[in-house]
Amino acid sequence: MAEPTASAFKVAMRGFVGSCSLITMGAGEAASGLVVTSGISLTAEPPMVLACVNRASSGWPLLKEAGVFGWSALGAAHQAVAERFSGRSGARGAARYDGADWVTGAAGARTLAGAPLAFDCAVEEMLDRGTHSIVIGRVLAIRTTPGQGALIYWNGGYRGLAE
Amino acid sequence: MAEPTASAFKVAMRGFVGSCSLITMGAGEAASGLVVTSGISLTAEPPMVLACVNRASSGWPLLKEAGVFGWSALGAAHQAVAERFSGRSGARGAARYDGADWVTGAAGARTLAGAPLAFDCAVEEMLDRGTHSIVIGRVLAIRTTPGQGALIYWNGGYRGLAE
Repeated sequence: MAEPTASAFKVAMRGFVGSCSLITMGAGEAASGLVVTSGISLTAEPPMVLACVNRASSGWPLLKEAGVFGWSALGAAHQAVAERFSGRSGARGAARYDGADWVTGAAGARTLAGAPLAFDCAVEEMLDRGTHSIVIGRVLAIRTTPGQGALIYWNGGYRGLAE
Repeated sequence: MAEPTASAFKVAMRGFVGSCSLITMGAGEAASGLVVTSGISLTAEPPMVLACVNRASSGWPLLKEAGVFGWSALGAAHQAVAERFSGRSGARGAARYDGADWVTGAAGARTLAGAPLAFDCAVEEMLDRGTHSIVIGRVLAIRTTPGQGALIYWNGGYRGLAE
């Protein structure tokens, strides 16, 4: 049995609903962030989250350096923000933050104002596997904004979901 | 800053869209499985997936033992299957497989017939963190069934999405 190719795997994964989050890190001009569909809960006690981050992304070295990050689940109206952080709009690094409002947490991580769910996190572990790091974050603070719906990525496009 | 409680974290995570998958393991009477919203892609080259599995679940020791598992993304019509594998219906172990059709892959793992996306996986690593294991699986084979929509878990309930 031949192992499936990377391309076959990617095509198949397009059919899997991705729940969109922003992972944001760094401050001032040395800031970046990325939109991921790999954000999940790891344990509730203690509150820990996990995301797989491409080590070729601009955010990866900043995560290592800063040791803290923001996690913002995206709402139905946040497609433009997702596109900026996906790099599709051409925006790089700190410029990705333009055009949206941010909340800076006590630990220094920024999260998206109005995100349905926002966590300030401390990097607990970064486990390198192939092209990616499994980033484990300890949740330091939680902020929620009800009624924002959710943004998913599915079959190659974004879709906003109403509650 | 006080660390958020497990309960506050769980309440917040209810607002995060979960993409539903079944993780199935074991054969015959020594079979079990669970429905998770923690299934994600790790790397495409090689094709690897990741899921966080509660170590108190009946499937966890079977995963260790079998070394292979099935991963089935759930379609819009699969809520009843999800409920059986969530344990809510009272079904335990092998009885969770009743009432649905299964495909047994070359490595011995079963996946749900008609799942939008099904992977036969070999356990690559199980990393214990707190109450859970981070299970990393290498994708051995892929099967897709187009047009099945998707099942999400959000705000405490299942929702089927049409394509």
